[in-house]
Amino acid sequence: MLSKAKIKWIHSLNLKKNRKELHLFVAEGHKLVTELLPLMSCRFLTATAEWLQKYPDIQAAEIAEASLQELNKASNQQHPQEVLAVFEIPDRKPDLNYLKNNLTLALDNIQDPGNLGTIVRTADWFGINTLLCSVGCADAYNPKSVQASMGSIARVAVHYVKLEEFIPTLNVPVFGTFLEGKNLYEFPHLPQAAIILMGNESNGISGKLKPLVNEKLYIPEFPPGSKRAESLNVSIATGIICAAFRRPKTNS
Amino acid sequence: MLSKAKIKWIHSLNLKKNRKELHLFVAEGHKLVTELLPLMSCRFLTATAEWLQKYPDIQAAEIAEASLQELNKASNQQHPQEVLAVFEIPDRKPDLNYLKNNLTLALDNIQDPGNLGTIVRTADWFGINTLLCSVGCADAYNPKSVQASMGSIARVAVHYVKLEEFIPTLNVPVFGTFLEGKNLYEFPHLPQAAIILMGNESNGISGKLKPLVNEKLYIPEFPPGSKRAESLNVSIATGIICAAFRRPKTNS
Repeated sequence: MLSKAKIKWIHSLNLKKNRKELHLFVAEGHKLVTELLPLMSCRFLTATAEWLQKYPDIQAAEIAEASLQELNKASNQQHPQEVLAVFEIPDRKPDLNYLKNNLTLALDNIQDPGNLGTIVRTADWFGINTLLCSVGCADAYNPKSVQASMGSIARVAVHYVKLEEFIPTLNVPVFGTFLEGKNLYEFPHLPQAAIILMGNESNGISGKLKPLVNEKLYIPEFPPGSKRAESLNVSIATGIICAAFRRPKTNS
Repeated sequence: MLSKAKIKWIHSLNLKKNRKELHLFVAEGHKLVTELLPLMSCRFLTATAEWLQKYPDIQAAEIAEASLQELNKASNQQHPQEVLAVFEIPDRKPDLNYLKNNLTLALDNIQDPGNLGTIVRTADWFGINTLLCSVGCADAYNPKSVQASMGSIARVAVHYVKLEEFIPTLNVPVFGTFLEGKNLYEFPHLPQAAIILMGNESNGISGKLKPLVNEKLYIPEFPPGSKRAESLNVSIATGIICAAFRRPKTNS
């Protein structure tokens, strides 16, 4: 049985300040929870009797059987899930030496948790292990962000830093997207030690970060110069740029 | 003033069956509404006195001044918007001749309206004017989809068809993404008259559509063969594939 106190505790983790204070976040659904279980420390797991019977070997500090109705009360999802778990937010520090020698994504004030989670998932696909977020970004452990990241949140380290102070210490080239940038496909060489800086959904890269950008990129629309849509969604633009950076060299 | 009856009517358009019956949909917010106004027929517009004073020349069959509080009652958004408008859903028929000679996106059972709207926006950026949706896809005129499309819904024609019957009549090559597909960047030639078929968020391309696929694509992860993340979000994958098809030939 899932107690009212537990439901209240789970709901409290919808708020960033509680997640931050308790270092905990919520993940829901079979696929996501089973992907996170071997990778993260699980503080609490609640599931239907059927689910628990199917997965008798799961590791969690505390396990509670619950009815679908109880799970529904605890859930953030529209459709009730058969399993919900509370995981510990890992305490990671940025590895400066790694960042100086690898491709990293930096996000400037990304507001939508869904975009942020989708970018975490995309970073994981393209072997980008670190996401540097400005302090104004949405929280990567927001339930919507966690769901969109599809388990990649366990593999991609997300750090909230003052980008304007942190980025210059890395001494790697910074690529940013601008409408007046240079065609992404005209760069003869996209380095594998660099920062890809993506700007806010409405306002792009903020004034204080613009001076840090060494190379201005532009994803060419089609036909060239048609300027129909004003822009691409930031997570789509991130995907296209990551794909271009990671494109095998033999074909470029 | 915004009457209760009007608020009820606006809310009724949250349901697909009402949108379909009335051929109407709702758009909210200054940016989206002003982008749609010159391109679509506006049945009703409601806005604050300040907004209406700033835009005295707008064209709409009916205009109502409203307080922010009234707008908030009518709104689907978390944050109240200063303008909301009801537009007519255009009655478009697929242009077979056009489809036989151009790049087209086809979506198989895409469930998330946000993904669908983001794909509409991406199609617009890449000059793809037609989206063929299976009848099981989310509705492109769902408020979430409209908001995600950012006005591109006025330029990209979305048709709901039985893909398994419609696609073969076009006689163009069909490209689909599969985990066992061929590296996207190893195709010597990506034609500009083709169908890019994208599958459902969880299940990919359905069994009945698989036989229609002539070329199986795969977006390579990095490092190759690492297989960390299970997949990319479908709208991200769509963006990367569209970018590859539209990449200027001089650099490929």
